[in-house]
Amino acid sequence: MLGNDYSGQQCSVARSLEVIGERWTLLIIRNIFMGLRRFDEIQANLGIARNVLQARLERLVDAGVLEKRQYSERPPRFEYRLTPQGRDLSPVITTLVRWGDEHRPAPGGPPTLVLHRDCGGEVSRDNVCATCGAHVLDPGGIVTALGPGASENHPLRKRTPA
Amino acid sequence: MLGNDYSGQQCSVARSLEVIGERWTLLIIRNIFMGLRRFDEIQANLGIARNVLQARLERLVDAGVLEKRQYSERPPRFEYRLTPQGRDLSPVITTLVRWGDEHRPAPGGPPTLVLHRDCGGEVSRDNVCATCGAHVLDPGGIVTALGPGASENHPLRKRTPA
Repeated sequence: MLGNDYSGQQCSVARSLEVIGERWTLLIIRNIFMGLRRFDEIQANLGIARNVLQARLERLVDAGVLEKRQYSERPPRFEYRLTPQGRDLSPVITTLVRWGDEHRPAPGGPPTLVLHRDCGGEVSRDNVCATCGAHVLDPGGIVTALGPGASENHPLRKRTPA
Repeated sequence: MLGNDYSGQQCSVARSLEVIGERWTLLIIRNIFMGLRRFDEIQANLGIARNVLQARLERLVDAGVLEKRQYSERPPRFEYRLTPQGRDLSPVITTLVRWGDEHRPAPGGPPTLVLHRDCGGEVSRDNVCATCGAHVLDPGGIVTALGPGASENHPLRKRTPA
């Protein structure tokens, strides 16, 4: 069995990876950031086994990164929301998007754009808004939007309105 | 066998994770950032199986994230250096450090400090230097140093002088 701890490591990277370093976990979190919050939506988007998704979600709830909320009584149905701790993962996701866009570009251009919430301008890798020139350092100042390379399966097309 | 691709995903996060998302990979890259560049140094620091380390390093060389350089002819010995693509992973590592420091703090304080290269001040999560107030947006403007929670095994204590 593949472990998910790094027990010899006194290191903040290792501590973070113990929570979010398993296969699929960061893609699940990305989906929830983009508004895909329900088990079946996330499962359909990622195409992963239901038991794997269930295990990852439970682990993230136990870790305090997600919370599970009931949105239907009959049948009982749940969705997953980011806790404040989970929302603080936004810069981790954003830096992975940036690196992928730059070094593994998608054929049709970036699938997702990172935009300045206040003015809609594109935010560059060094967190400067191309339109208004502001430094956008607070993750709450950023929104994501479909980019030219977005597929039909892009989470922003699939989400349930909040 | 656990795959490392996310073939259904048209997504920059998935593209990044295909390169750096395997277990141990980001800790190997962290070590090289901190100056542990030799196979035996990295292996001793992480305590992982030699064949696993070998496989991860080869994959990172093939991906263009690391390059392998000979530092001794007899016996033939190699070290691993970050390519420009690899150095661009600095913000990914830094955001993981920040999240771990904040949400999974080490008992003795942060093991690693992120400092402003120009003045030595501590750089906050929003990339502002606490000493001189500069925005430190370029990863080259940052250096790492031992923090109060650093263990005896911290990579910065173990590295070979460049």
